[in-house]
Amino acid sequence: MTDVDRVHAANQLFYIAHEGRDIEAMTAIWEHSDRVVCVHPGWPILRGWDDVLQSWVSIFRGPGQSQFILTNESISTKGDIAWVTLDENLVDGNGATTIAATNLFVRDHEGEWKLVTHHGSPVINR
Amino acid sequence: MTDVDRVHAANQLFYIAHEGRDIEAMTAIWEHSDRVVCVHPGWPILRGWDDVLQSWVSIFRGPGQSQFILTNESISTKGDIAWVTLDENLVDGNGATTIAATNLFVRDHEGEWKLVTHHGSPVINR
Repeated sequence: MTDVDRVHAANQLFYIAHEGRDIEAMTAIWEHSDRVVCVHPGWPILRGWDDVLQSWVSIFRGPGQSQFILTNESISTKGDIAWVTLDENLVDGNGATTIAATNLFVRDHEGEWKLVTHHGSPVINR
Repeated sequence: MTDVDRVHAANQLFYIAHEGRDIEAMTAIWEHSDRVVCVHPGWPILRGWDDVLQSWVSIFRGPGQSQFILTNESISTKGDIAWVTLDENLVDGNGATTIAATNLFVRDHEGEWKLVTHHGSPVINR
């Protein structure tokens, strides 16, 4: 497996955790540090693992169920950093919407890629 | 100057170029490669320097004038990669709005920090 393969797999795990509303799997994919950042679509910046975790707990408890169709993925790596950009195509009762996402991963001491930044933003049809 | 100081300075240059609608300064701050990514607020993902440049040309030709008040800045670095998250507070005739932004920089062979990813998203007041 190349670095890109591993980052792709880590990125997939993030969305599997999200779709499954699995807080344990979501916890496993993130770095647990003060520097983690999460921007949910339309949300302000959340900083630090405590606040990021709380947001996922809240989202997973909320209504709705989302299924992602991931497209337009591009992965770049440099040293122990990797960044992924992709479209999250959300299918729910209201039809389909697209979220543009940037996910930044850092390779830890055990060689695992951990999420340090997730930024999602709604694409407004133009 | 530390790496963080230099990244902070590079990030400032990006916003100075934006405020000044200065396409030459904007060109200087970006890496010119296929891997660059830009997500303007509400826009789809733009990939590659040609499309990113074209978007700035289009934005700078458009109506309106924006003044940024930058707050909530946080900078992390690892090797030759740095990422900045911050709030872009936009003041214009319609009042103030906030854009959450993630900016990713790569240090080039000459030691200069070049922008490879800019992702901005509107914060919807909650």
